[in-house]
Amino acid sequence: MDTKSENRSFGGTQGVYTHASKTTGTDMTFALFLPEEAATGPVPLLWFLSGLTCTHENAMTKAGAQQWCAAQGLGLVFPDTSPRGEDVANDEAYDMGQGAGFYIDATQDPWSPHFRMETYITKDLTDLLAAEFPLDMDRQAITGHSMGGHGALTLAMKNPGRFRSVSAFSPICHPTASDWGRKQFTGYLGKDADWTGHDATLLMKDRGFEGPVLVDQGTDDQFYDLLNTGDFAAACAARRQDATVRLHKGYDHSYFFISTFMEEHVDFHAQALYA
Amino acid sequence: MDTKSENRSFGGTQGVYTHASKTTGTDMTFALFLPEEAATGPVPLLWFLSGLTCTHENAMTKAGAQQWCAAQGLGLVFPDTSPRGEDVANDEAYDMGQGAGFYIDATQDPWSPHFRMETYITKDLTDLLAAEFPLDMDRQAITGHSMGGHGALTLAMKNPGRFRSVSAFSPICHPTASDWGRKQFTGYLGKDADWTGHDATLLMKDRGFEGPVLVDQGTDDQFYDLLNTGDFAAACAARRQDATVRLHKGYDHSYFFISTFMEEHVDFHAQALYA
Repeated sequence: MDTKSENRSFGGTQGVYTHASKTTGTDMTFALFLPEEAATGPVPLLWFLSGLTCTHENAMTKAGAQQWCAAQGLGLVFPDTSPRGEDVANDEAYDMGQGAGFYIDATQDPWSPHFRMETYITKDLTDLLAAEFPLDMDRQAITGHSMGGHGALTLAMKNPGRFRSVSAFSPICHPTASDWGRKQFTGYLGKDADWTGHDATLLMKDRGFEGPVLVDQGTDDQFYDLLNTGDFAAACAARRQDATVRLHKGYDHSYFFISTFMEEHVDFHAQALYA
Repeated sequence: MDTKSENRSFGGTQGVYTHASKTTGTDMTFALFLPEEAATGPVPLLWFLSGLTCTHENAMTKAGAQQWCAAQGLGLVFPDTSPRGEDVANDEAYDMGQGAGFYIDATQDPWSPHFRMETYITKDLTDLLAAEFPLDMDRQAITGHSMGGHGALTLAMKNPGRFRSVSAFSPICHPTASDWGRKQFTGYLGKDADWTGHDATLLMKDRGFEGPVLVDQGTDDQFYDLLNTGDFAAACAARRQDATVRLHKGYDHSYFFISTFMEEHVDFHAQALYA
């Protein structure tokens, strides 16, 4: 693992690191915030999965999360959104290929050799974080934005016992019913594959989540009709899921929305992580 | 208007009053809490509409709302849930007739002479409160429980500009799709009447609400399947309504649930009323 940068931030350290991932077959970059408390012992870990076109950097610099994680004594990791490199397949579209890994393991050419973000997140990066940093891996929670909200909700439900709480900002809630989802699942998994295990609304209907769920969505989101928040809310109600879904008037899809409600998300996770 | 009782409460006064209603053709009883601030000028008004079998008294004694309305300087009125008396039609069932007015105006015999709770609330009681008490009627908000949650949501959407915010505890969200609704609408309005204007989910789809909406629902509610929270949440999402829907793990349909979240509802309304 190489340290690319470390900066003091809210009494803790904001670092950026690179490591070789066996799963993606590439070098991968991630950012990790550690609060002051990490100097004296392991701290709980919150994951933030980013959206289409993002790297590890967007949320690190624009979500305003460090101040609240510092206040709650939480570590916060920002993974990249896909493998990258000249030898890695790509697509001209912003929503396919590099920057658009969708937090699943591709099974179709040309994507399958490198696009295995689900295993990368849940195995490679998890193992590295546990080995290299003072993190209490028995206390993990997960959040994310848009494609990363899809990632957070689906990884939380796919891995029972792994995350104590899950939240999302403007998540892709029902990808099998959206152009943000069908296109990528067709490319990465194939049109005849079973997609149901990668769809938050279908996972909620099928199994739910053992902890609390929080979803925030702006009503002026320019991608509103791709996100299907109502389908997920209805699935939560049908499941009797411990869940809060909030529709915020006038907010859009940007980091200005995310940063506005970040404090409440961090507090939500802290309540579960310290319970 | 007759004063039945007045008790000091949280620095203000909890009163119970009776008046003759032209609309119901009966004497009607209601409870009104006025905070300390009402001694020196008009205060905003929050309505609490109660559920099946309740009178003005249940929420007054069990919801724990006075402390939070005192803290926020709000008046709080608890109307009765139906006309009452020996000359008023009734039904042996707990969910029909006296104690079950459903906040609509009946058009069918034997109910139509007295069961006109919609007009009673929005006209008779409103006019009386404005005339007799130091209330700022330009600042009104509304909440309620179960059948009263249905009442709050529907009256808020039926009367644009009247209420600045609306919330509900375990509301009947979709009465035209529930045994709590179809039975009563059949009796009060007739099976061939147009019920759509009295259904919160359908009103949300059709017109929405100009202010914020908050709905709380317990996942262990013994009447969960009669309430259709998911339908209302999906309608809010489809409408891009400023709305929060929360599903609270382990809570049931009782006043123990209501009192747990009352502070947040009063604060929610205070934010809208003082904006």
